[in-house]
Amino acid sequence: MKIIDGTIASPLGFSADGLHAGFKKKKLDFGWIVSEVPASVAGVYTTNKVIAAPLLVTKASIQKSQKLQAIVVNSGVANSCTGQQGLDAAYEMQRLTAQKLKIEPDLVGLASTGVIGEQLPMDALKNGLSQILVSGKAEDFAEAILTTDTCTKTCVVTEEFGSELVTMAGVAKGSGMIHPNMATMLAFITCDANISSVTLQKVLSQHVETTFNQITVDGDTSTNDMVLVMANGCQQNEEILPDTEEFEKFSKMLRYLMADLAKKIAKDGEGATKLIEVNVRHAKDERSGRMIAKSVVASSLVKTAIFGQDPNWGRILAAIGYAGADVSVDNIDILIEGIPVMQASSPVAFDSEETRDAMAGELLTLTIDLHDGDSEAQAWGCDLSYDYVKINALYRT
Amino acid sequence: MKIIDGTIASPLGFSADGLHAGFKKKKLDFGWIVSEVPASVAGVYTTNKVIAAPLLVTKASIQKSQKLQAIVVNSGVANSCTGQQGLDAAYEMQRLTAQKLKIEPDLVGLASTGVIGEQLPMDALKNGLSQILVSGKAEDFAEAILTTDTCTKTCVVTEEFGSELVTMAGVAKGSGMIHPNMATMLAFITCDANISSVTLQKVLSQHVETTFNQITVDGDTSTNDMVLVMANGCQQNEEILPDTEEFEKFSKMLRYLMADLAKKIAKDGEGATKLIEVNVRHAKDERSGRMIAKSVVASSLVKTAIFGQDPNWGRILAAIGYAGADVSVDNIDILIEGIPVMQASSPVAFDSEETRDAMAGELLTLTIDLHDGDSEAQAWGCDLSYDYVKINALYRT
Repeated sequence: MKIIDGTIASPLGFSADGLHAGFKKKKLDFGWIVSEVPASVAGVYTTNKVIAAPLLVTKASIQKSQKLQAIVVNSGVANSCTGQQGLDAAYEMQRLTAQKLKIEPDLVGLASTGVIGEQLPMDALKNGLSQILVSGKAEDFAEAILTTDTCTKTCVVTEEFGSELVTMAGVAKGSGMIHPNMATMLAFITCDANISSVTLQKVLSQHVETTFNQITVDGDTSTNDMVLVMANGCQQNEEILPDTEEFEKFSKMLRYLMADLAKKIAKDGEGATKLIEVNVRHAKDERSGRMIAKSVVASSLVKTAIFGQDPNWGRILAAIGYAGADVSVDNIDILIEGIPVMQASSPVAFDSEETRDAMAGELLTLTIDLHDGDSEAQAWGCDLSYDYVKINALYRT
Repeated sequence: MKIIDGTIASPLGFSADGLHAGFKKKKLDFGWIVSEVPASVAGVYTTNKVIAAPLLVTKASIQKSQKLQAIVVNSGVANSCTGQQGLDAAYEMQRLTAQKLKIEPDLVGLASTGVIGEQLPMDALKNGLSQILVSGKAEDFAEAILTTDTCTKTCVVTEEFGSELVTMAGVAKGSGMIHPNMATMLAFITCDANISSVTLQKVLSQHVETTFNQITVDGDTSTNDMVLVMANGCQQNEEILPDTEEFEKFSKMLRYLMADLAKKIAKDGEGATKLIEVNVRHAKDERSGRMIAKSVVASSLVKTAIFGQDPNWGRILAAIGYAGADVSVDNIDILIEGIPVMQASSPVAFDSEETRDAMAGELLTLTIDLHDGDSEAQAWGCDLSYDYVKINALYRT
């Protein structure tokens, strides 16, 4: 597998673009991805009981068509908690896109991100849709889906499948609340491999547990979260089937890309100054390990301590204890940036100043050895800073 | 029921005091409550798997003796994550207290709060224990158990039981992380009523679900949380038995006192500028209602919005949706300080400036009507401010 520079349109047969349509004041706020042919598709959606209109429409369409040929996204307005009017607007967004691209409406996926409770401005939408071109400036797509993210988040990898070089590309936008109104995590992944929707969904669902579901910025699950993967088969490789060597290769590619985007989202969490990576070793089972890793990275106390470069292992141990996981808490080692700060669940002497200095970087790694089994797990998050409070306490203006 | 001024030693037959023993630099850091006679006792303890030594000792002793005659508390050092040495120290603390008071060790309850992972300084402990007097300055007890709480938390009520006037008193210390190392919520309740330990435990366990378990400051469950109730029967009323009118009266008293202390803890959360009260109406059942109320009051986004006086109902709806409760999300009304901001799960027009002004007070009430059943629930918390980050990010010095 090779990591390359590229865009969401790097895989064969995809085009993408972004522009300013009028959902926001000035910034790019409307983007699309189009495949030359209907692509196999897989999706995962928010677990929030309150689900935004574009997700309801996309999920229903994918269930019907089992394929997708285009994804249209606006930022600035989330079209969430907007009742029947919002649902009608989402269907109109889908219908108008399909008309423009001369494809079936059920082949169009939708996503919105931004302020909750505001209706989609139809003028901006029509303005955006009128400009859809099948080949565009694909790097602008990554920018058009952002809200208050501070940077675009892209990852592109290639891998040989027989004589074909398959390319897979992903773009994501951040968690954090972004507009001080609503968090949304969106990720779109394109690939030119030949793989069925059923197989694609299997791989996506498997890896989402250990990647996107293992990041947290503030513990608030959005109404708009969604990950969509399209594979259009334009590379004409032999179909990738489950339980084959090719499948494992494909799975590894997708896992790498998802983990990379997840980490980029965590690192760009609102107000964040550091990416925190928690590595849990020797957990009783994988699920317990994941629960513990996520509990630690989600703790407000751990997050503030790391912001303050305080090697406060007591807070880490407390977060392990309340994770709700099946774990024995009598023989735990904790290392901060490789420096042992707790051994066998008891204090050990360590140089506070040296440890503090080691915590100064942009990546902070916590290692937790539970000595309780053979499973491993990871989670990613960010520190909790003054700026998080500032961004989210500001009155909407 | 009457609410009166008083101390933890207001009920008949109790004495209490607090002093500086040397666990902290200057402030009061050692306190005790002593009953003239062994008292019926009930306790609830942290659900964290990591449990501090004093809790382990107290729980075991209460199981054996079913009575308690004294509670000794130090602040400054939590005696948590201190291994065998910490457990030995806790047993020594219990043994020395018993020796001084000439009672059985199993009649002595212990609590510690403060820094995690540090051993109990035995010199300070012996210094404190040497000064135990059976009658003391009881108001100092409420101060001696504090860490970075900004105020003492006391509540005293009286009620007639036949011809006897029963007094019940409670003292608590705050959640928040206090020393930037460990949160601890402690509450001690004394009463001169005649009631068995079994009956007392029943009432305590029932009310803890709707009071102390419904508050949150930062979602981190401490290793030292504990609530202990002692009833010494000195008022010589007829024994209070379950399923009687007297029992209901006693239950109501205890519930009032527990809710009052819980709210005082929430209000004094680290960095808090406001007490937030969430009232859930028409929930499917009580448990769902409680989960929803607590999810809303625990949301970092709701907390920061309230700090910024932003009537951001979308965040409230999102927190209802991810509460994990059994709830229909299609017909929800939300009121902020009595002003409707969402009706039937759709936006309604409201005056933002007026609402913002209404949010300026020290108490902020959110009302959520689920139109989904007949149950009600409440939860309390505080806003999330710059000072929370400041208090918890500061390097321990």
